[in-house]
Amino acid sequence: MELPGKRRVTRPVFVGSVQVGGDAPISVQSMTTTDTRDSQQTLAQINKLAEVGCEIVRVTVNSREAAQALSVITSSSPIPVIADIHFDYALALLSLKNGIDGLRINPGNIGSQLKVREVTRVAREENVPIRIGVNAGSLERDLVERYGRSPKAMVESALRHIAFLEKEGFYDIKVSLKASDVLRTVQAYRLLAKRVPYPFHIGITEAGTIFSGTIRSAIGLGILLSEGIGDTMRVSLSADPVQEVRVAYAILRDLGLRHRGVEMISCPTCGRAEIDVISLATRIENRLISVKTPLKVAVMGCVVNGPGEAQEADVGIAGGNQKGLLFRKGRIIRRLPPDDLEEPLIDEIRSLTGEFIP
Amino acid sequence: MELPGKRRVTRPVFVGSVQVGGDAPISVQSMTTTDTRDSQQTLAQINKLAEVGCEIVRVTVNSREAAQALSVITSSSPIPVIADIHFDYALALLSLKNGIDGLRINPGNIGSQLKVREVTRVAREENVPIRIGVNAGSLERDLVERYGRSPKAMVESALRHIAFLEKEGFYDIKVSLKASDVLRTVQAYRLLAKRVPYPFHIGITEAGTIFSGTIRSAIGLGILLSEGIGDTMRVSLSADPVQEVRVAYAILRDLGLRHRGVEMISCPTCGRAEIDVISLATRIENRLISVKTPLKVAVMGCVVNGPGEAQEADVGIAGGNQKGLLFRKGRIIRRLPPDDLEEPLIDEIRSLTGEFIP
Repeated sequence: MELPGKRRVTRPVFVGSVQVGGDAPISVQSMTTTDTRDSQQTLAQINKLAEVGCEIVRVTVNSREAAQALSVITSSSPIPVIADIHFDYALALLSLKNGIDGLRINPGNIGSQLKVREVTRVAREENVPIRIGVNAGSLERDLVERYGRSPKAMVESALRHIAFLEKEGFYDIKVSLKASDVLRTVQAYRLLAKRVPYPFHIGITEAGTIFSGTIRSAIGLGILLSEGIGDTMRVSLSADPVQEVRVAYAILRDLGLRHRGVEMISCPTCGRAEIDVISLATRIENRLISVKTPLKVAVMGCVVNGPGEAQEADVGIAGGNQKGLLFRKGRIIRRLPPDDLEEPLIDEIRSLTGEFIP
Repeated sequence: MELPGKRRVTRPVFVGSVQVGGDAPISVQSMTTTDTRDSQQTLAQINKLAEVGCEIVRVTVNSREAAQALSVITSSSPIPVIADIHFDYALALLSLKNGIDGLRINPGNIGSQLKVREVTRVAREENVPIRIGVNAGSLERDLVERYGRSPKAMVESALRHIAFLEKEGFYDIKVSLKASDVLRTVQAYRLLAKRVPYPFHIGITEAGTIFSGTIRSAIGLGILLSEGIGDTMRVSLSADPVQEVRVAYAILRDLGLRHRGVEMISCPTCGRAEIDVISLATRIENRLISVKTPLKVAVMGCVVNGPGEAQEADVGIAGGNQKGLLFRKGRIIRRLPPDDLEEPLIDEIRSLTGEFIP
């Protein structure tokens, strides 16, 4: 069995310029936490997200004012914007007019097939795909009664919503099936994967701290992606959404699916380390968060073994025993004072990548 | 396909009183970072690890003095102790005499079949299993030449080491196959799973920061455990080993394999939250780290919806709008000042669990 498994074959859609599904790379998305009515603050957050590699951003649209603010947001956003809407089809129509690139709405919840017709008509005109977002916490009552809040119930709910769109000849569809636990989420996606050709937005609903949310997303999205399931992903965390993007890329990198930015290599904790490798590596990792170029950066605690052990690193530092080194691909290129390793390393990365590093 | 998959059938071994393999729960282990010669410091760290649920602990034995310190360590340790030894069979023999419960040594590296005979003879007398620990970074030269540092090479190396033990009629074996990347690690374990009946110690070699190490272990061990592979696990992090144990239990919990201690539930970031839910939840999570009783604890930012949204929580607090609440299973049991939520919650958990919370 190869890893990751063969990618599931899906019918691609376009969220603005970003292809989702088909043979497109798995795209990384996140969601703003600002008040959408405040377009300036929202744009500021979108810009920060785009800087760390977010490729699609979703914003809550829970009022007319929020939908109106979209015209400013969508015209200045560097990445495609998706409007997240619950129930209110008038907000969907207004958002579509205001330049959004994607719509998240569950067609079975907006009132009638006529309203679905109107939304899909405008979405088609504007070339906007619709994501159906099934959540185990808010399933239809009859499905819960029949199947409980099970993967089966989630899949049946998705199929119902999909039918509303297909009835209108609308197929630019993505689907998500989220629960707050790994097991149900994975099973639901596996089941639906056999039933429909639409690309999947994958994610686990947030329900905990950054610590538990990171682990839960890594396991759940890791299992799905390793089976070839998933076309766009969001890591949900109760935290600054910048962290969501970081975790998403770390997951994709570990599965060999995408390589963006810096991967840190550092020595394990050991009695020999003579500089504080852990805190130095973590500080440098945070400074390099916006670097786009794929790069392996090593921070080692031993000048004797460090460069050799970190041969695979594009660039690295080693410090200890009153000495310091800067090396590239295992070859020493400069000697450094052991208490001044960070800046020379950052400088080297600046010149290697040609990117701005604050 | 059910999740987790059916557990791989293995021949159980005993590390002291802890069964590994067969139908035993997947055990959690970690490794000390102290100088093993300093038995007092090592024991202090072992006690801290045992408190947070570590069930087996490994210590480096790289000198005669370290092997001698084992007699004090093993006689006072509250959990079984494994000696980690490279090459030196005399250290293995001395460790076995000094009361260890497990040995990690690669028999193909200790010099001769005669030495293997001597080690297995004493191990059998002392009822001590041997773990073979294959690492992609230190494979036999001829295997690297033939197969590269591939999963195939890792598996072939394991089979060679196993043959040394089987030749002596020694079958109390565990095996690990570690690489610093998820893909090779998972593939190697999958391959070996089809070849031998021995239980697996699973882990990914540490090669980064806590951030990347946590994600890498969650993906890799998550995939393996979800396929029923893995009998004992170590999460390797460049960090306080207490963190390794926390991450291990979070992975096991997310896969429904084991439930130990506190699971935090908190609201997603939203504009409505009127207390700092994220930092409060994180602080409480850290205070409850030694709690053994499985318990869902909620921290919610809204007194109106909080208790209902966190119905599944055994106990929780909600705060906001100058009000505060303590609730159990969604039912309000006490009103609280909004700036004094933490201590009443901790008190409630003390009385619910009967456990000491600092």
